[in-house]
Amino acid sequence: MPSIAKRVAFQVGSDIFERTSTFSSASNNGYYISLRPLVKPSKTSEIEFPLEWAFCGTPDNIKITQKSENVTTQDFNFWLDTNTYLNVPNTHRGEVNTTWETWECGSLKESGSVFPNGKSSPGVNFIELWQPMRIDKSEEVVNITGVNNGRSIVFKVDDSNYQGLVVVVGKWVQGYLSKKNDGTIKGLNFIRSVQQADESYETTFKYGSDISKFPTNFTNLKVGEDVTVNGLAWTVVEYDA
Amino acid sequence: MPSIAKRVAFQVGSDIFERTSTFSSASNNGYYISLRPLVKPSKTSEIEFPLEWAFCGTPDNIKITQKSENVTTQDFNFWLDTNTYLNVPNTHRGEVNTTWETWECGSLKESGSVFPNGKSSPGVNFIELWQPMRIDKSEEVVNITGVNNGRSIVFKVDDSNYQGLVVVVGKWVQGYLSKKNDGTIKGLNFIRSVQQADESYETTFKYGSDISKFPTNFTNLKVGEDVTVNGLAWTVVEYDA
Repeated sequence: MPSIAKRVAFQVGSDIFERTSTFSSASNNGYYISLRPLVKPSKTSEIEFPLEWAFCGTPDNIKITQKSENVTTQDFNFWLDTNTYLNVPNTHRGEVNTTWETWECGSLKESGSVFPNGKSSPGVNFIELWQPMRIDKSEEVVNITGVNNGRSIVFKVDDSNYQGLVVVVGKWVQGYLSKKNDGTIKGLNFIRSVQQADESYETTFKYGSDISKFPTNFTNLKVGEDVTVNGLAWTVVEYDA
Repeated sequence: MPSIAKRVAFQVGSDIFERTSTFSSASNNGYYISLRPLVKPSKTSEIEFPLEWAFCGTPDNIKITQKSENVTTQDFNFWLDTNTYLNVPNTHRGEVNTTWETWECGSLKESGSVFPNGKSSPGVNFIELWQPMRIDKSEEVVNITGVNNGRSIVFKVDDSNYQGLVVVVGKWVQGYLSKKNDGTIKGLNFIRSVQQADESYETTFKYGSDISKFPTNFTNLKVGEDVTVNGLAWTVVEYDA
């Protein structure tokens, strides 16, 4: 089942906060993308690059294990990850091991540890709280049934110049595109758009000089097909419309 | 401005969780009500009385002080409060002092202390996280603008047999009604209903043998007027339709 969840809080130690509009999308087949733009970037560095973090991955980059009725473990090995791409100091590299508990109210508590100074140094525990949202609504509507109906479409590019993933779940589109051999914020691009009642797409977050290369047509496609957008050829890797 | 907020998490010590569907409504003039029904009552006592807590108050029962742009203190002296009514052991009595911080993402962090064993014993710190919701929508839609447009209507009863408050903000109705001189769960009644697109009201939570006494008509009223519902006379104390 395709899904999208909004992060409602991020806790490190006893410090709980939320400065972002974070949405994590997951496709039917397990492709995932999490964009974490700051709602009110304030420092110069934040204005230049207004994201806390962004990452995405394929089903090969995540291992989900059901531990009990309401608990899973999820081990992430991000395919693309801004911290790694930008080589941000004191951030985690490699697999992140997390535990997900579904609460009675439907929200999810994710807990885990990251190792910003390497696995030989002490880890930092974190908690993230997630609220499942409806994929079939243009607004941020809490999903109180736990059920989602809607399309699940994924585009991927991995050529000599670019790597990227676009995940469409219901009305929600999120995309990540990075230039190979750049490693600066100039090589990064993100898009979040939401289909409106009139079928048009409203872009609610965008970043980067290559955003015109993200796919914008999601109809009449088939898996394996290439879709070229302003010179960039994306492959349709999942298509459940 | 009338408002409604959904609690997304409740933290005591390091234990963060959420078992309820808690909504707190506040009227234009500062009447407030918070109903905290359990989503999945499981223990016998929970099935008999499926609420974590409920309370309501008038503008006289709350003192709000702006401390800085994003911070207020709110001192609550509940008018009606299930813990007090039922004399639940090890629960707080009297004023609760809280601090509210509005986050950049629009959510609110409430922090405070309660004194379940009296003010001479150590207090228990708590945090509650709140997400403002749109009052003009029938579903649980996150309010990302911070602005609300909609009616603000309040009914109050305080006669020889009953005490109660109903707060209507936009499409959302929440009511609390208690029988005087009872002090058991049999004397308590609650209602939550939400107006649908066809103008009808869908009851999403109800409890008690007197729920037929809650007002159901919210049109063509005026402040000071009495509205009698199945023998119970409510006074319209706020009417901004």
